[in-house]
Amino acid sequence: MEETRYGLRVQVSRPFAETLERTTAALKAQGFGVITSIDMAQTLKEKLGRARAPYVILGACNPVLADRALAAEPEIGLLLPCNVIVYATTETGTTVAAMAPLPAMSMIGNEALTAIAREADTRLRAALGTLDAGD
Amino acid sequence: MEETRYGLRVQVSRPFAETLERTTAALKAQGFGVITSIDMAQTLKEKLGRARAPYVILGACNPVLADRALAAEPEIGLLLPCNVIVYATTETGTTVAAMAPLPAMSMIGNEALTAIAREADTRLRAALGTLDAGD
Repeated sequence: MEETRYGLRVQVSRPFAETLERTTAALKAQGFGVITSIDMAQTLKEKLGRARAPYVILGACNPVLADRALAAEPEIGLLLPCNVIVYATTETGTTVAAMAPLPAMSMIGNEALTAIAREADTRLRAALGTLDAGD
Repeated sequence: MEETRYGLRVQVSRPFAETLERTTAALKAQGFGVITSIDMAQTLKEKLGRARAPYVILGACNPVLADRALAAEPEIGLLLPCNVIVYATTETGTTVAAMAPLPAMSMIGNEALTAIAREADTRLRAALGTLDAGD
């Protein structure tokens, strides 16, 4: 598991389509339903005629955590659902990254969100951990 | 226009459904297509049996800006599309807020994104400005 300034990332030694399916299943096992899916490659191709490698943005939502977060911070919807990106790195390699809840929470500055962000962080790491090529 | 730590917000003296429609049109006029729409109130009602006032999360995407942002920062998809929330405050009043691009960019720490974030900020302010009850 790699950590960036705002993401948690794993490199997966599997092709894109298979990784996308496995990511959705791994999120579900941690209580995150995928409630949106944006095919960025397709969108940019349609709008700008730009070809690019497969790149999908999944919107993952754990309803219990979302409900608690909205109670603590009504405008947290600006950062929901939790984005998880899946993009092709090579023919047989795929990168999966999730928005890191803790840096986002520090931007918001509401301590009531800390426990919720920690739980989301733990669950996202668990989901990504099952995809990790290093496993 | 109010500014929060991570959002741009306007209070609109119109009912929810009308404001939702006007928000979508205002975003479109600034080059942002609404590519996702999450009815959070409905989602939480279905999943948790929890009743709450109307609350929708729109995913707004300006393809030209998204394409430039992805070129500068491949994992910016973790913060795309730009969320715009529309929620009922009273029977006849609605709040609209957009993710503020500049605070999010400072979390990311990539200066190549600054000009793109400034343009997104200007366009979102213009869109929200047309909804503002103070106009």
